[in-house]
Amino acid sequence: MSHASRRAALRGLLRTADVEALLVTDLVNVRYLTGFTGSQASLLLHVDGDAASRFCTDGRYDTQSAEEVGDLERMIDRGGALALATSADDLGVTRLGFESDVVTVDQHEALVDAAGDTVLLHRTPGLVGRLRLVKDETEIAALRAACAVADSALADLIAAGGLRSGRSERDVSYDLETRMRARGAEGPSFPTIVAAGPHSAVPHHRPTDSSMRRGDLVKIDFGALVDGYHSDMTRTVVLGRAAGWQRDLHALVAAAQEVGRARLTPGAQVVDVDAAAREVVAGAGYGDEFVHGLGHGVGLQIHEPPLLGPTGTGALQVGMVVTVEPGVYLPGRGGVRIEDTLIVRNGVPEVLTRSPRELLEIG
Amino acid sequence: MSHASRRAALRGLLRTADVEALLVTDLVNVRYLTGFTGSQASLLLHVDGDAASRFCTDGRYDTQSAEEVGDLERMIDRGGALALATSADDLGVTRLGFESDVVTVDQHEALVDAAGDTVLLHRTPGLVGRLRLVKDETEIAALRAACAVADSALADLIAAGGLRSGRSERDVSYDLETRMRARGAEGPSFPTIVAAGPHSAVPHHRPTDSSMRRGDLVKIDFGALVDGYHSDMTRTVVLGRAAGWQRDLHALVAAAQEVGRARLTPGAQVVDVDAAAREVVAGAGYGDEFVHGLGHGVGLQIHEPPLLGPTGTGALQVGMVVTVEPGVYLPGRGGVRIEDTLIVRNGVPEVLTRSPRELLEIG
Repeated sequence: MSHASRRAALRGLLRTADVEALLVTDLVNVRYLTGFTGSQASLLLHVDGDAASRFCTDGRYDTQSAEEVGDLERMIDRGGALALATSADDLGVTRLGFESDVVTVDQHEALVDAAGDTVLLHRTPGLVGRLRLVKDETEIAALRAACAVADSALADLIAAGGLRSGRSERDVSYDLETRMRARGAEGPSFPTIVAAGPHSAVPHHRPTDSSMRRGDLVKIDFGALVDGYHSDMTRTVVLGRAAGWQRDLHALVAAAQEVGRARLTPGAQVVDVDAAAREVVAGAGYGDEFVHGLGHGVGLQIHEPPLLGPTGTGALQVGMVVTVEPGVYLPGRGGVRIEDTLIVRNGVPEVLTRSPRELLEIG
Repeated sequence: MSHASRRAALRGLLRTADVEALLVTDLVNVRYLTGFTGSQASLLLHVDGDAASRFCTDGRYDTQSAEEVGDLERMIDRGGALALATSADDLGVTRLGFESDVVTVDQHEALVDAAGDTVLLHRTPGLVGRLRLVKDETEIAALRAACAVADSALADLIAAGGLRSGRSERDVSYDLETRMRARGAEGPSFPTIVAAGPHSAVPHHRPTDSSMRRGDLVKIDFGALVDGYHSDMTRTVVLGRAAGWQRDLHALVAAAQEVGRARLTPGAQVVDVDAAAREVVAGAGYGDEFVHGLGHGVGLQIHEPPLLGPTGTGALQVGMVVTVEPGVYLPGRGGVRIEDTLIVRNGVPEVLTRSPRELLEIG
């Protein structure tokens, strides 16, 4: 889908919100609507069309924005959103929406000043986010590529004997990130988590210089960034033969993950998807050890709506891309998380991360 | 300096701002005040001391926060800042400051609701930022280490023949980042810029698969992340013998940079430092081709106050760490930027990035 089509879709939401234009200040939203990949930009999207809309960035990005945002009139102005707010009057705007979930209290005050007396600012949170909930084919292609890179990198790592006792968590994380880069990732989609032994019981452990040991559960949570889109996958393996409790824990989490995946259907309430997987864990007596939500949306951000958790709201729709990642963490002993990135489809969801889920005993 | 000392210093600012507590919601500010390195946390800092203060994060970070923030009472609550605002009443707070330069319009509304009728929210922007302007010795040690890693990585790259015609910009950037990792960086402090030939005229170019060629100016802007602190350095080299215009352009930017560095003294207005370096460039007829500010603060963020630019405000103080990075960009031909990270000292500034600045002709 072209950026112009996304802007056209947004115009429908502006009409419903009863504003003549939206001031887009969230940089990721600007990227979504324009393709601009620099670090500073804003957009005034006019309901009348692109000719009445304005993209604004600063002098560092003059050349880059000319290439990336050739289909919109550009302003090069350090004032950014303030300059756009000032221009709203000239563009015939009297009701200007702004992203109240992004704009700070201080920025809002400055925007009100810049807009002047004839332009009224209206709170219109989450309009672009509503579009971003459902991924278009361009986005799905990027997500698919990001997940494929992560899959290959993990397979490479394992084939090369990269998961072995004696190696440090940090070495493994670096090795994995290097393999993703070699396969075309712009970088990791977040700092890679490699957590061995008792560390695997820390949900968001960061790799240390400590060595992995035979008998350790090793939890690996990582992803690749491709064309600005993130992948997200977790696998938990054992170095050597799995002990009974490790095998049982893995089987429990796998069962919960399977239930979560099976519930990923259009129309399902996100709280219900979370609850179904959580029930499996709670039924085995480990409800308190599943300390996070079941999953989250993935796209231009590694964590984005919808939240699949007890506090999530709304229902799944075809084309949402989400993770399903139950985990059980036993402090001092170890933990297991199994996570995939999937597309909600009519019928069964499409799994984008295709690495085997069975408990791998390595070495 | 310990985190507790930073909190003590902040209490002085709270008294001046006439609030009994500050709700710290900016994650970097939370890290600065507590040492917490996870991705979600907030802090209610009470003017009465740490015993009356509360740190809040979610269940994923229970273990990690116990290790990193052992000296503060912790709440594990997904509600985050809202939960802290709700607790303000119990802590005897009637005037609660919040970071109005960080809190969004929507969050503010929710905080007002959560705080209840007896707790009034007061806009207190930039209090922690004011402390962070001047780096303490712990911070300077990390910045020094980050700059040293970048210096070594660049020296390694050059010694290994990593800068040669035929190689792609992307390969070089990856090579440089790998060398920083090998020398202990957590990662690059931002996506490495390698820009060859006409690309060097794009201030924030991103590396492509195009090959560097003999005769190219190659601009390399990069940094290392160490203990959460960023380094920032740019060098521009020539592959082969420099043409006259390349040599002249480099000499001009070097002269401007030298003037900028010389003006880096306590009490100097940041606009004057920028203007002095800019005058050198403008005097040679290239004022319009120096499209960005002269520099910026560096610390827990790659870009932080003070801004050394035409729109900057305030004066330099001993212990500020800033970049000085004039650049001249000739579209279609090439550009030169020379950048160092320096500490403002009494007398001459201390240069943290120590790579040679002379025009290097490679191969």
